[in-house]
Amino acid sequence: MLYLIGLGLSYKSDITVRGLEAIRNCSRVYLEHYTSILMAASKEDLEEFYGKEVILADRELVESGSAEILRDADKEDVAFLVVGDPFGATTHTDLVLRAKKDKIPVEVVHNASVMNAVGSCGLQLYNFGQTISMVFFTENWRPDSWYDKVMENRKIGLHTLVLLDIKVKEQSLENMARGRLIYEPPRYMSIAQCCQQLLEIEETRGTKAYTPDTPVVGISRLGSPTQSFKAGTIKELAEYDSGEPLHSLVILGRQCHDLELEYLLEFTDDRQKFENDVRADQEYFKPAPWVPPTEEEDDM
Amino acid sequence: MLYLIGLGLSYKSDITVRGLEAIRNCSRVYLEHYTSILMAASKEDLEEFYGKEVILADRELVESGSAEILRDADKEDVAFLVVGDPFGATTHTDLVLRAKKDKIPVEVVHNASVMNAVGSCGLQLYNFGQTISMVFFTENWRPDSWYDKVMENRKIGLHTLVLLDIKVKEQSLENMARGRLIYEPPRYMSIAQCCQQLLEIEETRGTKAYTPDTPVVGISRLGSPTQSFKAGTIKELAEYDSGEPLHSLVILGRQCHDLELEYLLEFTDDRQKFENDVRADQEYFKPAPWVPPTEEEDDM
Repeated sequence: MLYLIGLGLSYKSDITVRGLEAIRNCSRVYLEHYTSILMAASKEDLEEFYGKEVILADRELVESGSAEILRDADKEDVAFLVVGDPFGATTHTDLVLRAKKDKIPVEVVHNASVMNAVGSCGLQLYNFGQTISMVFFTENWRPDSWYDKVMENRKIGLHTLVLLDIKVKEQSLENMARGRLIYEPPRYMSIAQCCQQLLEIEETRGTKAYTPDTPVVGISRLGSPTQSFKAGTIKELAEYDSGEPLHSLVILGRQCHDLELEYLLEFTDDRQKFENDVRADQEYFKPAPWVPPTEEEDDM
Repeated sequence: MLYLIGLGLSYKSDITVRGLEAIRNCSRVYLEHYTSILMAASKEDLEEFYGKEVILADRELVESGSAEILRDADKEDVAFLVVGDPFGATTHTDLVLRAKKDKIPVEVVHNASVMNAVGSCGLQLYNFGQTISMVFFTENWRPDSWYDKVMENRKIGLHTLVLLDIKVKEQSLENMARGRLIYEPPRYMSIAQCCQQLLEIEETRGTKAYTPDTPVVGISRLGSPTQSFKAGTIKELAEYDSGEPLHSLVILGRQCHDLELEYLLEFTDDRQKFENDVRADQEYFKPAPWVPPTEEEDDM
């Protein structure tokens, strides 16, 4: 059996009881280690907690070494651990498809991921549109296809979850060119950098998918002991020191209800200003006023 | 301390280790019991597993009896358990706001909910738009405001998660009028009924937010031992016997990538027909073909 087990967001004890029981019966335990990190637990913490050796699985092992991961999984139990949920922000459908092809049974143990736990900022999950990813801009690579998605979401009033880039076990171009297996220190995008990149692309595109005064919520260390939320405008959060990783961001849509707003006000520096900013931003993409249907049209 | 603890989707052991540890230190344990149910565990199973009495909290207790739930929570620990995640499909932000007003510290223990575990059908979570709820139609009440949301999602190519109505501890109109506290047996909407209601409203509205041939995925007993997925058209699933509850549905959007489709094909009766249905449905809301920008416009 191949177990895909979500670890949740932060603590070693965020694993479910069912997930822990499964691990304890596994002969090999892999931890996917390139799309996220468990904030409040190290590899050693996990090994002690599980009573098992944990093998770190980098992108290369997962993407080209799936035969090694699946080895003998038809005869014994193998666990593949994923921070968050196995079908959350990064999905591992390819590994499942590969297992099914090899006639290896697969069991999924779900857990919280940023995709649902983001609701704890007070914004309703059912009012979120498509999710976007923000990568580190480089000199020559400043991808902005996410801009159109934000525009689409905001046109229909929806919030946008922005997942921020992390770089774990990356080589510099020089080391890669020379074939040296030397890795750069891990990097995690801050909320300020994300907001600066948002501002830059709005300036380039200029079609007002959002403005510097659009309200956003910065989410830091979600689900960890030091979790924090910060509500303000993009311009304000471009200066915000969000501290230790991990971070994500939500760009508000027009459909921000009073209860959502009341909750967000707890996370502002200036409640009145933020409320005004939200009201002003709601004027963007506002639909035409409703006109009562004539008797003929009203067929309900 | 007020603990809001997600129970996950199905098994008693779907609770996280951290959630279980918190419960064991609580003096009172409430289980929110009107928006969802834990599929593979009864109240008695939970009580035995936790070693604690569990108080079922119906809508009335939560919405008007929050003072009772929060009683003494500034001096002792109280747990409020929610199937799924406390900020998932139904959020309990009002209870949190009330606790904060009373200066009661709140800790959230997240878990999987349908809002993220739905990813296990193979569709990518970041391609979902806003979520809708489908209620049981009655003779005089056939609400269809969700139709516009499906249209909005599909216009930009996104999938739509449909949450299906459940009725737990509801009174008949007659018993309510006579003040008799007699409750109807619980009811859970089936995938077939949901699809029939979708077809009815499309027929009334007639603006092709979707058609009878639009592909959908029926999701039954997500995360439970008998979890199952069924991919087909709305018309086909309007005849589908989905078995025991709980159910939900996903209406596909145009942005269905090849890897998503490959995964869905596992859940079809006729792979080739479903693939054709998906390709045909992708013609709806297809954007105009891309025209390369002129040198002047191309300012990147």
